[in-house]
Amino acid sequence: MPIELPKDKPNNLAANALQEGLGGQFGEMRTMMQYLFQNFNFRGKAKQYRDLIKSVASEEIGHVELISTTINMLLEGTTENAPPNELPLKPALNAGNIHHFLVGAQSAMPVDSVGNPWSGSYVYNSGNLVLDLIYNLMLECTGRLQKCRLYAMSDNKTFRATVSYLIVRDLAHEKVFAKALESLGVNWGKTLPVPKADSSKMPEVRELEKRNLHNQQWTFSNEPSHLRYLTGALHSEMAKLKHLMDFRKDLRSHKHQKLHRSILLDWTAR
Amino acid sequence: MPIELPKDKPNNLAANALQEGLGGQFGEMRTMMQYLFQNFNFRGKAKQYRDLIKSVASEEIGHVELISTTINMLLEGTTENAPPNELPLKPALNAGNIHHFLVGAQSAMPVDSVGNPWSGSYVYNSGNLVLDLIYNLMLECTGRLQKCRLYAMSDNKTFRATVSYLIVRDLAHEKVFAKALESLGVNWGKTLPVPKADSSKMPEVRELEKRNLHNQQWTFSNEPSHLRYLTGALHSEMAKLKHLMDFRKDLRSHKHQKLHRSILLDWTAR
Amino acid sequence: MPIELPKDKPNNLAANALQEGLGGQFGEMRTMMQYLFQNFNFRGKAKQYRDLIKSVASEEIGHVELISTTINMLLEGTTENAPPNELPLKPALNAGNIHHFLVGAQSAMPVDSVGNPWSGSYVYNSGNLVLDLIYNLMLECTGRLQKCRLYAMSDNKTFRATVSYLIVRDLAHEKVFAKALESLGVNWGKTLPVPKADSSKMPEVRELEKRNLHNQQWTFSNEPSHLRYLTGALHSEMAKLKHLMDFRKDLRSHKHQKLHRSILLDWTAR
Amino acid sequence: MPIELPKDKPNNLAANALQEGLGGQFGEMRTMMQYLFQNFNFRGKAKQYRDLIKSVASEEIGHVELISTTINMLLEGTTENAPPNELPLKPALNAGNIHHFLVGAQSAMPVDSVGNPWSGSYVYNSGNLVLDLIYNLMLECTGRLQKCRLYAMSDNKTFRATVSYLIVRDLAHEKVFAKALESLGVNWGKTLPVPKADSSKMPEVRELEKRNLHNQQWTFSNEPSHLRYLTGALHSEMAKLKHLMDFRKDLRSHKHQKLHRSILLDWTAR
Amino acid sequence: MPIELPKDKPNNLAANALQEGLGGQFGEMRTMMQYLFQNFNFRGKAKQYRDLIKSVASEEIGHVELISTTINMLLEGTTENAPPNELPLKPALNAGNIHHFLVGAQSAMPVDSVGNPWSGSYVYNSGNLVLDLIYNLMLECTGRLQKCRLYAMSDNKTFRATVSYLIVRDLAHEKVFAKALESLGVNWGKTLPVPKADSSKMPEVRELEKRNLHNQQWTFSNEPSHLRYLTGALHSEMAKLKHLMDFRKDLRSHKHQKLHRSILLDWTAR
Amino acid sequence: MPIELPKDKPNNLAANALQEGLGGQFGEMRTMMQYLFQNFNFRGKAKQYRDLIKSVASEEIGHVELISTTINMLLEGTTENAPPNELPLKPALNAGNIHHFLVGAQSAMPVDSVGNPWSGSYVYNSGNLVLDLIYNLMLECTGRLQKCRLYAMSDNKTFRATVSYLIVRDLAHEKVFAKALESLGVNWGKTLPVPKADSSKMPEVRELEKRNLHNQQWTFSNEPSHLRYLTGALHSEMAKLKHLMDFRKDLRSHKHQKLHRSILLDWTAR
Repeated sequence: MPIELPKDKPNNLAANALQEGLGGQFGEMRTMMQYLFQNFNFRGKAKQYRDLIKSVASEEIGHVELISTTINMLLEGTTENAPPNELPLKPALNAGNIHHFLVGAQSAMPVDSVGNPWSGSYVYNSGNLVLDLIYNLMLECTGRLQKCRLYAMSDNKTFRATVSYLIVRDLAHEKVFAKALESLGVNWGKTLPVPKADSSKMPEVRELEKRNLHNQQWTFSNEPSHLRYLTGALHSEMAKLKHLMDFRKDLRSHKHQKLHRSILLDWTAR
Repeated sequence: MPIELPKDKPNNLAANALQEGLGGQFGEMRTMMQYLFQNFNFRGKAKQYRDLIKSVASEEIGHVELISTTINMLLEGTTENAPPNELPLKPALNAGNIHHFLVGAQSAMPVDSVGNPWSGSYVYNSGNLVLDLIYNLMLECTGRLQKCRLYAMSDNKTFRATVSYLIVRDLAHEKVFAKALESLGVNWGKTLPVPKADSSKMPEVRELEKRNLHNQQWTFSNEPSHLRYLTGALHSEMAKLKHLMDFRKDLRSHKHQKLHRSILLDWTAR
Repeated sequence: MPIELPKDKPNNLAANALQEGLGGQFGEMRTMMQYLFQNFNFRGKAKQYRDLIKSVASEEIGHVELISTTINMLLEGTTENAPPNELPLKPALNAGNIHHFLVGAQSAMPVDSVGNPWSGSYVYNSGNLVLDLIYNLMLECTGRLQKCRLYAMSDNKTFRATVSYLIVRDLAHEKVFAKALESLGVNWGKTLPVPKADSSKMPEVRELEKRNLHNQQWTFSNEPSHLRYLTGALHSEMAKLKHLMDFRKDLRSHKHQKLHRSILLDWTAR
Repeated sequence: MPIELPKDKPNNLAANALQEGLGGQFGEMRTMMQYLFQNFNFRGKAKQYRDLIKSVASEEIGHVELISTTINMLLEGTTENAPPNELPLKPALNAGNIHHFLVGAQSAMPVDSVGNPWSGSYVYNSGNLVLDLIYNLMLECTGRLQKCRLYAMSDNKTFRATVSYLIVRDLAHEKVFAKALESLGVNWGKTLPVPKADSSKMPEVRELEKRNLHNQQWTFSNEPSHLRYLTGALHSEMAKLKHLMDFRKDLRSHKHQKLHRSILLDWTAR
Repeated sequence: MPIELPKDKPNNLAANALQEGLGGQFGEMRTMMQYLFQNFNFRGKAKQYRDLIKSVASEEIGHVELISTTINMLLEGTTENAPPNELPLKPALNAGNIHHFLVGAQSAMPVDSVGNPWSGSYVYNSGNLVLDLIYNLMLECTGRLQKCRLYAMSDNKTFRATVSYLIVRDLAHEKVFAKALESLGVNWGKTLPVPKADSSKMPEVRELEKRNLHNQQWTFSNEPSHLRYLTGALHSEMAKLKHLMDFRKDLRSHKHQKLHRSILLDWTAR
Repeated sequence: MPIELPKDKPNNLAANALQEGLGGQFGEMRTMMQYLFQNFNFRGKAKQYRDLIKSVASEEIGHVELISTTINMLLEGTTENAPPNELPLKPALNAGNIHHFLVGAQSAMPVDSVGNPWSGSYVYNSGNLVLDLIYNLMLECTGRLQKCRLYAMSDNKTFRATVSYLIVRDLAHEKVFAKALESLGVNWGKTLPVPKADSSKMPEVRELEKRNLHNQQWTFSNEPSHLRYLTGALHSEMAKLKHLMDFRKDLRSHKHQKLHRSILLDWTAR
């Protein structure tokens, strides 16, 4: 797990809200699966972009674990260990999602905050590199927007630690995809980041920004184009964002139009 | 209906493919409903953006009609008018979608090309103007990408007429949203349009481009912020794209940050 | 918008209940899309029925706008404009639908009152005119039944204004479809309307009935078989219900069986 | 099972088409579950209507069995009993629904003819007796319409036997619900039955009509308001339709308005 | 109905929780439909197993009725019979499922406790007898696990009577499928039953166990392989579990491998 | 990727069939997500079982990659690189899933073989260790059953290599879960494996069995309870199945009942 989680009181409503960040349309299962599929399906020689997507995909697996664990910590202790006829599960009747107590064993589920199960129809992978990157950018921004809203819903410390960490990492990923698009010609000016959430009123976020965590992206291996998913040691092999980002130089040797064709396996793009 | 449709032989496989453009995740029902909701839910004083979204939304209603009518023309005549024991509906067993013959009466349905019904979960409306516009841009590009792929699936004339028209109009809408984002600070450089489909091998598309149809957007009324949906007379009140696009001047008087706040009703964006 | 909406206190629970009337199985998106598809797919010479369906379809677009706007008014002001660490969005944890605050920006969504997204599978269009009209009749009655139930859930003035207006218009549409079926041979006796909701205890409804709003249907254009969708001026070109309904005369010249065949494009109906 | 099924050649495309009648929106699972729920949820004293609904519900369980068995007979023998490396299941790649061979063991599934799983959202039970009966009438008509279309798709004898039987029984059920509505005030004139399918070109249907099977409804027990589901002996205790239908006499003693109130448990209907 | 239900106060939250047992993934509609399909699709000569599955399937129809009726009793009386402007349905805004009051008429629906409609995709029928039996065992255990959790949520007497009865019958069914698997070679040791819920703190369950209701399974007819579904008289023809279970003797004459092949219609199992 | 894939001719029908193994209810996305959630949500001291589940979960990520890559290889080359008006995508109209060509860029998608998107509702995690293990056992068997059926559908070499590898690994996983259940008391006798597929007619499978690949399970790290996901080097750190399986000794020190309680966080299990 990428961070240590502080203990606080259980809170099933906060747990349910957090499900949006896990199984929602713009949650971590979505980013993980979307980037995995874009990675598996990548074609053509522009390996730098694939490495980038693979790098973020790997990190998202850790986010799915992080947010699941947080939901579990928020749910644990919401009921007492009493015999059934003393109604230990009565609180479930007013819970954010009764399934947390009835279908699951007070643990995380692959659903959003209103109980819709995660759907494969969420995954976007058009095969056009520019479109996929624009979508990924928008996806990270929307994820951060929702997490900023979550931040304003509860000050539970466990909840806040995870939400703040994800706000900062979503920002890093937004930058990664923004810079990849810059290497293909876009100039974002002062438009990014979106949303322009001010972290001065989000102390936990501010703290992580001081550690520059919103400006880094990690490779996950020493070997080129291989990734390692190390649950407990995610931080051990960090590399500066600009290091991963220097692929613009490599691109100069490609003829832009050709690059597109080879990437897309898509005759429409020439 | 925006265009006249030439008659050709019926073709139920082409009809089914076209369902993607009607009830698919990136089809016309999606754009119509997404822009309608963005329009209804718009808040703040930046009325120019709302007018723009409303303008495109109105046009999309016409596109839903156009594509439905095209599917109907492609289905009509695929079966013969014979008594039941002569098996007039036997071709349905190998049809692209048997529901066209069994559930519908050889007519269009609100489903995609593999039979998934259209879903409200497709609609994106984050409340953040920049994100909504980026999504709309990506949506139009993806719509055009899919229609370029459809173009390469059949040369049926009725099919081609509609697909070509929508390729051109999707391009116009991409430009509309691109320019709206430019007014908020993005410089697209040579990135757009995506995909970079070459119309020299799509004669019907080329023909429409000669009429400059990919560079126009219409207002639908003389009265400010009202739209008119005139089924039969969509072309009658055209206005040059740049006319609708001169709102950048109006924006100068707004302080950028303030604009954001008023639009979003979203405390996170400041 | 068809009516002026009075302001009242915000109420997110009432907003959520009203989502049933927007994105529910018997809500306004359903009627709008069902009638649009029946209109697009209509075949045969009985143009009067198509005009009737088109007329109601056009009005339903305005209802989708009306109910979305009402939900927005009920949601606006349910949170305060405070910095995130003061938990302005805390009320979302107990809201009718947390998505109103987390996924949307306190605005209407294409979902029902328990959060199920609207589905294309709701649309009914069998291709048999009589069946389609019976379904439409039942659909309007069920819509009104649900709105009568909504009426009894909240006395918020904004909520009541919209619910009452829709009760009255659903009744008008029920009559429209009932009379169309009468022209094809059904005698409803005293069965209709269903449900037999007594408006004497619904003062807002009673008020609208005094204006005879439950007995009118509008054409939307002077030109035959064209419709105009005029957001702000829906009331400007009213026509008496019986005017639209005098198509029975035209039908006399058709041989009943033949009419059916031409309408249906359905070999089974002869 | 209500009828004997003649053997014919296997035909996986016909089997798939028939899935619409099993797991489709207007198939036998739908009628069975809708009537079961209407029966379970019935309130008030108008026991005659409940008995009627229960009677049809019970019969529908037998139809689910009949249509499942038919699908199984059509699938059995479509593959040969050969070792795997001789590709006995190769025909599955072009089958109507590959799941018949891959997920199921060449047997019936609770899905429609394009593979959508049956959904609980299909079930209609508004609590208003008139509306429920109108819906049931429309449901039976639509079921018959679809089965008439199925009839014209294949002349496989096993397929035809089942489709014909269901056409005739759907007609009987349409009459049952029509007469129930007549007892509440509707006069259908010459509108019913819909569709007006001519059985002179459907010899198997004609044969069953000669046995008057489209004019009978059975009670399933001698004891009042109890039903018996006797798989093998469904025909043994037939009763004439008019016998079941003589409840109109019983209704005379009820005040119409009161009846409604007691049935509905619906305060809106008075 | 299999048992008499005691009256208690209405409780819409308990009613909603109970929906899981009706329309949930592991509820009674699931067991009923899964066993019905396994029964319809059964092939081969091992008729004893089919009879067993059919026997349980038939009982599950009664459970669907029982749980629907219980939900209805819990909902009845949650609102008062007042005119609409006195807001009799206001409690619906905070109800477990607002659809109980808005879509249904305060009655049971084919959905789970968070409002997801029942889906045909739940039904498991692989065609491999051992796998189907393992799944059925797991299904019954999970059903009982969830009902034990429900027991601990409310002490409403109507609710408890049904939940307790189903706990006991699920246990009986678990034993039935466990013993069927024993006849095919599995020795469960002390693993079963799962979960090991202690009924000493569930007095209503204990009471039913004293009547040995957890150790019986009924045949529903005197005639071999026919079932009778007698709503009011379910208890009248009980037979000891071991009576139904003595099919192991019959199996001795089959060669195990051969049996498999004939059952499966599945060339892969040899 | 765990194995090298031989090249063969493209085959879009085989690609589509293989989607079942990727995004189907019993495919690799399912096993991956189910085991990840069981791992994240695991509680109590029986760390051996959690390690086991984690180990299989990690391997399944590699299987998702393997099967996606195989689908891509089968799709690549099904169309020619020609200009759009020469109809290079015409074959899509008859493809197994037109979305492969229209929505995706001839690449894998998170859907099953009839186009249903993967759903979070598939994931089973009851919180009861025995039930979760039984489900996992059944899941692996069903996965293998479906892959045996796939084997008999095509002899394409790329397709066969992947299907055969997964048959062998599913068997290994079945054994892992079977042995875990043995450590809790079950004796499977000769029941397992199910299905009893004979590999003598599946030469590719036989080849892998000679390498004993169906009898091994790997840990993915030297450090206790950590896993490493090494895309390219999955085979490098194998350990014999019985090594991972010797946790039964560790269990002796636990009182069985107590163990259950701590694992489940489930008061019902004592």
